[in-house]
Amino acid sequence: MPNPTAAALIIGDEILTGRTREGNGHFLAGVLAQTGIDLKEIRVIGDDHATIVAAVRELAAGHDHLFTSGGIGPTHDDITADAVADAFGATISIRDDAYAILAAHYATTGMEFNAARQRMARIPAGARLIDNPVSAAPGFSLGNTYVMAGVPNIFQAMVASVLPTLTGGKPLISLSLRVMQAESSVAQAFGALAARMPDISMGSYPFVKDGAYGTNLVVRGTDAARVEAGHAQLRALFPEGQ
Amino acid sequence: MPNPTAAALIIGDEILTGRTREGNGHFLAGVLAQTGIDLKEIRVIGDDHATIVAAVRELAAGHDHLFTSGGIGPTHDDITADAVADAFGATISIRDDAYAILAAHYATTGMEFNAARQRMARIPAGARLIDNPVSAAPGFSLGNTYVMAGVPNIFQAMVASVLPTLTGGKPLISLSLRVMQAESSVAQAFGALAARMPDISMGSYPFVKDGAYGTNLVVRGTDAARVEAGHAQLRALFPEGQ
Repeated sequence: MPNPTAAALIIGDEILTGRTREGNGHFLAGVLAQTGIDLKEIRVIGDDHATIVAAVRELAAGHDHLFTSGGIGPTHDDITADAVADAFGATISIRDDAYAILAAHYATTGMEFNAARQRMARIPAGARLIDNPVSAAPGFSLGNTYVMAGVPNIFQAMVASVLPTLTGGKPLISLSLRVMQAESSVAQAFGALAARMPDISMGSYPFVKDGAYGTNLVVRGTDAARVEAGHAQLRALFPEGQ
Repeated sequence: MPNPTAAALIIGDEILTGRTREGNGHFLAGVLAQTGIDLKEIRVIGDDHATIVAAVRELAAGHDHLFTSGGIGPTHDDITADAVADAFGATISIRDDAYAILAAHYATTGMEFNAARQRMARIPAGARLIDNPVSAAPGFSLGNTYVMAGVPNIFQAMVASVLPTLTGGKPLISLSLRVMQAESSVAQAFGALAARMPDISMGSYPFVKDGAYGTNLVVRGTDAARVEAGHAQLRALFPEGQ
């Protein structure tokens, strides 16, 4: 049985204008690989309602899970919740349980529970809340789509809240060998090995260290015995590798 | 006249499996903002022929420019050149000028010009070469699509080769104000200002520093006078900001 599939949708003008280097997609990629969910695409788009609606519809329909990051805060440019509601044809309004969580949080911190903060209680009808242990304002899931904050530590905490609810497949196992040869020197033997073992994935990643060429050769798959067999073949081909 | 638009397509299993944190999209975003080309999407996909063909067709058709990163090296998993050729209905074969560049490079370095290295001279018919001052193996452009290496320093060198050939629009100007208040405290006044100045873009980016909440308020646009006017309004709203 193949692993479930997923896509990530990263929302924010700050990434497309070069202000912020995206990292949530990278974090999610590592977590999903360990969980046995195959991440097929990471897509970064801007804060535009129609663009978000279209991307949510396409990516939610094309994958078992869709994870979004960004645009659920208190300001005018936080439009993700409304766009996700539209994408699923759901209404959206301030919901009592989300409101209560936020009211309790601001009562504790002594900050006013103002209109901007109340806006973070807007949740599409039919959604389940995603716990936010960092700053209270919840994410939510609707259908197969998990809507989370863009601030990295909050995103990571929300992913931790969501993960136990997902059914994963076989975790991805990666073994690598570091060879101090140019990628184009190892390409022929490495490609021949990959052709002999088509059930596992092999990738090569060149680097330059202290002026010398090197390549990391990576064997990936979900069957541990096959990945280890591939790695053993690789070590036999490049006995100097580490 | 609106700025030209662009998309970036980042190709590589190593990113979707969490091995590598993508950075070429971020680099390109900064360069394009300065050039006056609006980056609308960054999409990361795996090393799969059909997926690359479909993404190149869609993104090249939907934007003035498409920039790709990754998959043009010497190994079996470097399939981007063939996929881009397919996307444009072009044939692909070893081309004399690319072959000559690589042959001269390997003659200089004393490394054998083997079959794997010759594979990097495969260029779609009708493409123009993109200079690679780092490691010789050229990128290429076909139609509105610029195909570049994934290794960051080579990608950056190829972008530098391509940029002078592009007609940009008005560079994006960003001014920001750092306020030591929670995003939800400034949201109402900031949103009201954004509503009064709909021709410029305003975004807010919360942070926590030494346990205290802060927010970076960013004003963006291509009209310097309007961006400066927005920033002046912002400073008047938050005189303590820096």
